[in-house]
Amino acid sequence: MSIVVKKFGGTSVGDISRIKNVARLIRDFREQNPDTQVVAVVSAMAGETNRLIALARSCVVNPDERELDVLSSTGEQVSVALLAMALIELGLPAKSLLGQQARISTDSRHTNAQIQAIDDSTIRATLQQGFIPVIAGFQGITESGDVTTLGRGGSDISAVAVAAALKAQACYIYTDVEGVFSTDPRVCPQARLIDRISHDEMLELASLGAKVLHPRSVFFAMRYGVPLVVLSTFKPGPGTWIVRESELVENPVVTGITYRADEARLTLHKLPGGIQSLSRVFDALAKEEIFIDVISQSGIEDQLANVSFTVPDEVSSKALELAQALVPQLGAEGASIDRNISKVSVVGIGMRSHTGVAAKMFEALAREQVDPQMISTSDIKISVIIPRKYCEIAVRALHESFIEMKPELGQES
Amino acid sequence: MSIVVKKFGGTSVGDISRIKNVARLIRDFREQNPDTQVVAVVSAMAGETNRLIALARSCVVNPDERELDVLSSTGEQVSVALLAMALIELGLPAKSLLGQQARISTDSRHTNAQIQAIDDSTIRATLQQGFIPVIAGFQGITESGDVTTLGRGGSDISAVAVAAALKAQACYIYTDVEGVFSTDPRVCPQARLIDRISHDEMLELASLGAKVLHPRSVFFAMRYGVPLVVLSTFKPGPGTWIVRESELVENPVVTGITYRADEARLTLHKLPGGIQSLSRVFDALAKEEIFIDVISQSGIEDQLANVSFTVPDEVSSKALELAQALVPQLGAEGASIDRNISKVSVVGIGMRSHTGVAAKMFEALAREQVDPQMISTSDIKISVIIPRKYCEIAVRALHESFIEMKPELGQES
Repeated sequence: MSIVVKKFGGTSVGDISRIKNVARLIRDFREQNPDTQVVAVVSAMAGETNRLIALARSCVVNPDERELDVLSSTGEQVSVALLAMALIELGLPAKSLLGQQARISTDSRHTNAQIQAIDDSTIRATLQQGFIPVIAGFQGITESGDVTTLGRGGSDISAVAVAAALKAQACYIYTDVEGVFSTDPRVCPQARLIDRISHDEMLELASLGAKVLHPRSVFFAMRYGVPLVVLSTFKPGPGTWIVRESELVENPVVTGITYRADEARLTLHKLPGGIQSLSRVFDALAKEEIFIDVISQSGIEDQLANVSFTVPDEVSSKALELAQALVPQLGAEGASIDRNISKVSVVGIGMRSHTGVAAKMFEALAREQVDPQMISTSDIKISVIIPRKYCEIAVRALHESFIEMKPELGQES
Repeated sequence: MSIVVKKFGGTSVGDISRIKNVARLIRDFREQNPDTQVVAVVSAMAGETNRLIALARSCVVNPDERELDVLSSTGEQVSVALLAMALIELGLPAKSLLGQQARISTDSRHTNAQIQAIDDSTIRATLQQGFIPVIAGFQGITESGDVTTLGRGGSDISAVAVAAALKAQACYIYTDVEGVFSTDPRVCPQARLIDRISHDEMLELASLGAKVLHPRSVFFAMRYGVPLVVLSTFKPGPGTWIVRESELVENPVVTGITYRADEARLTLHKLPGGIQSLSRVFDALAKEEIFIDVISQSGIEDQLANVSFTVPDEVSSKALELAQALVPQLGAEGASIDRNISKVSVVGIGMRSHTGVAAKMFEALAREQVDPQMISTSDIKISVIIPRKYCEIAVRALHESFIEMKPELGQES
């Protein structure tokens, strides 16, 4: 019998009627696929984790992290018990398994632990006894028996890790969207549901802001070769399959257009040594968990360059403050900031074998009088920094050029 | 270093400010007793267990009991984490321990499990590392790793069991009353706080309706020789010590007066075979969890007796129905019920060595024109069944005779 893992996020189990809906969804899948065993992985009911953390903060100023994990892990404990009950009521034998029962071993970084190993013996034994294992996501246990939680995106990572341990056929991530779209449907109504995409592309789309899956879980899936399916709990549909590149039948040149509307560009003027001397600035920013993105250098004159880099706008004031404090030590003339910029990217593994994507991209932007201020490329992505007011125009123009029309590009190389 | 166990019930940890109050109480005890180690055992915040059970019932009609335990055990998990955080904030290193972490092994009767063993190694290791162990009451784990809960009075039993395993100096049960009183202060304002009482007496007082401690926990304490202290979380005071009989310096003849106001008396008229033929009635009642209390037989004539027994009034209609259904099979003439009776008892281990307690009791009742309808005795208790309207009068009269005045009775035998 093959095994599939089905992961249900907080919105999918947000209240009792939704938990019962999930139970019916599992029953229907079992009826349609009698030869496939199901393992469920469940998040806390939407809002529950935040409620528990607020409870801790109402008690003490700085909650101890070990105890915060004991507290917040009750969120998933409640939802697995309720889903198991709902499955049993539908006549499907089910058993909840907490992180320690499912033997999900993590390191001891409380509130942000990483899975180190899964001993699948209990999960397999539960399946063999005819039960549907309903596993608490987001939690694990340390070697010394302490409860841990996995931090952001944790339940997705639990699901992928369980799927990898069980060598599952696929890991279904049920969420409140129908899958991964070629761009943000709110900006571009022509956005299409992507049916298949590679892990690499998904990683670029996820880190660029498509909020469907946490990058760590995609990375995990890629590393262990787990096919992921992103689909809606509420609206039946095929969803988007995220698979090995070798399993993609055809590789469109561009799979998706993503953007981050609220970026800021920080510039250090007349910096001696150019980009090479920036490490102290980056170190200072990294200590505050501010990570720089696109970097460029311009106007080198007498060994002095203007160096710009982008950061998320919400941390840009802090970043400017840190940079300005370092200006005297760096020997720069000063630091300035431009808050009204956005980043727009085209992503596709087809770029590896096709030339002319950048030219086509600039052409599409030029038609709309959008002038890129900075450019950054990887082998499957090209990003441009543009004034914020053109962000949506640029997304639509690029979507039209690359997704809606078959682009004519250079030969496969 | 000696060890004490301190157990805090749901009211004591009923909200965040009360949890912080408990943390301060533990800190103050530690400061005053630097050579005594503290182990805390904690219930769920008041109302939380009921909220969780209601959540389960809003999901399914008959919640699976294994899953109900997974769900309801989160109540204690939340309170131990919060109390540990509050202790840490006060500068006291603390670690929460769930049932499985504290290695509280139970049988697998979900929702009503019994503790089978406690492996104290984790608790001792936690103490040795300088942490205050904050143990989740009410929960344990089966041999196969399933979460269980102990049923009613469970957290008290957890605390006593932990104290027994650690050979603790005492087990403090913090509650919302100052201790065990010689009778119900609402009925008799002269009620006195008992300073020391034997386990046996406490068992009689508890089973007779003093709602301070669950009988199972007293029984456990007696069996393992754990001194119990019942005291208030909110009002400082010595509380009541429940100790081995041999540790009582003087044994008052009567320690306490208890009552159950709402009893009912069921009578089977002209029953062939008398009390001996009642087993079928008692079996039928026991199946419905109705337990009979005082039994008496009167008016034997031609081998036919009138047999009466008492049951709690809230189940008396059900009991009458069951008895009436059996009347034809038993060959009795009929069954009737008297709903307006109460049971009043005097309890004291001094009765073992003093004579004349019953006579003194009837004398006190007679002075108030109260005529006992049924009587039941054990070696440390005498109970009378009286009309309900005299219940409070009888309690006050007996309290005056036995507790407020030194009774003059026969010599020690």
